[in-house]
Amino acid sequence: MRVLVYGGCGGLGRAVVQHFKSAGYNVTSVDIGENPEADSNVKVNLADDWVNQEKNVVQSVLDVLVGSKLEAVINVAGGWAGGNTQDPDWVKNADLMWKQSVWSSAIAATIASKCLKEGGLLVLPGAAPATSGTPGMMGYGMAKAAVHQLVKSLGGQGSGLPDGSCTLGILPVTLDTPMNRKFMPNADFSTWTPLSEVAGTLEKWSKNLERPATGSLVSMHTQSNSTYLRLEN
Amino acid sequence: MRVLVYGGCGGLGRAVVQHFKSAGYNVTSVDIGENPEADSNVKVNLADDWVNQEKNVVQSVLDVLVGSKLEAVINVAGGWAGGNTQDPDWVKNADLMWKQSVWSSAIAATIASKCLKEGGLLVLPGAAPATSGTPGMMGYGMAKAAVHQLVKSLGGQGSGLPDGSCTLGILPVTLDTPMNRKFMPNADFSTWTPLSEVAGTLEKWSKNLERPATGSLVSMHTQSNSTYLRLEN
Repeated sequence: MRVLVYGGCGGLGRAVVQHFKSAGYNVTSVDIGENPEADSNVKVNLADDWVNQEKNVVQSVLDVLVGSKLEAVINVAGGWAGGNTQDPDWVKNADLMWKQSVWSSAIAATIASKCLKEGGLLVLPGAAPATSGTPGMMGYGMAKAAVHQLVKSLGGQGSGLPDGSCTLGILPVTLDTPMNRKFMPNADFSTWTPLSEVAGTLEKWSKNLERPATGSLVSMHTQSNSTYLRLEN
Repeated sequence: MRVLVYGGCGGLGRAVVQHFKSAGYNVTSVDIGENPEADSNVKVNLADDWVNQEKNVVQSVLDVLVGSKLEAVINVAGGWAGGNTQDPDWVKNADLMWKQSVWSSAIAATIASKCLKEGGLLVLPGAAPATSGTPGMMGYGMAKAAVHQLVKSLGGQGSGLPDGSCTLGILPVTLDTPMNRKFMPNADFSTWTPLSEVAGTLEKWSKNLERPATGSLVSMHTQSNSTYLRLEN
């Protein structure tokens, strides 16, 4: 069984690669660096524009797979940046957010259209706050809203994905990543979603267990160290 | 009274420039070309990246205004392109949609933060179909969904816009533009929204007449040559 993790070197990406490896999957990581725990790695060249990044990443993935199909394509790439209209860097940050979340999601969708098996799973990285306005993090909100809408498009008739496949958006509030611990050391960690919860959910969905309907946005909430999922659309 | 029309050379843009000129406004057009009907023109350089396009357009607008403030910043830039995940050009089209609708909207937001008067109006170009999935026009849907979310952010507390200003998204279904007539010559034009209806609505909103709450998405529907507005959020 093969899965592909886009963003396999990030905080969540590493946890997801590790989880699927432990569960016996062959894992391909796509990222700007290599994840030594993955069975194979495809490197993204940040100097490429969107069209060439898609072309090069898709070709490299096809070269790795040599005709075998994927159970799941899981994109967990993306970062965070703030900024409102008064912030001189808000457009620069919006550009970065777009490249991290939307370029990766579009390329993951193309990979899924070519390499996912029938009935396979595609997961894209949304964010719960972007289901409404986010005045203090405008670029981040726009990028995540675009990903949310892409999930709905991919879940619709005529998206070009393999028959019976399922596209879901995961919308965390705050993930318990090393980076978030570093930058918010005094937060209440009991309300942060553990990476193991996310990875375990992704594995279940990959196995077609407890899968919401394709096109669903699934927000992840944690209270008193207990995590529950909620459909947003 | 001054207004700025972003995309003043497009089908809708020309109609809006003309309407505000007839109503006695001083109109600045921002576009890749010049609109001779406008009082002043600011040209967008397509070779610029997003950050430089923002920097150069904002500086040129400041040079034109020399301290005077705008009643309204109206962005009607943007085009249309189709494509699902099987379309080899879908990412190329998504990139174009992003640049046309989202770059322009972000730059219009920065202009509004610097040049709009208190209680002024900012209008951004959404699209009714993008309020749900758009499998056959994936890049278009993502870009418009991002604009919709930006409208909500700009309507929220802390967006950095002047006090009392109002940000609205206009979400047409199909506009009765020369381009749409050319490419869909056999459509039922009685269901297309006339440009004069849109321009008239924009002028009313500019005068603070019949303005929906800031952050609203306003879809425009036409049946039997009669147009009505509906709040989408």
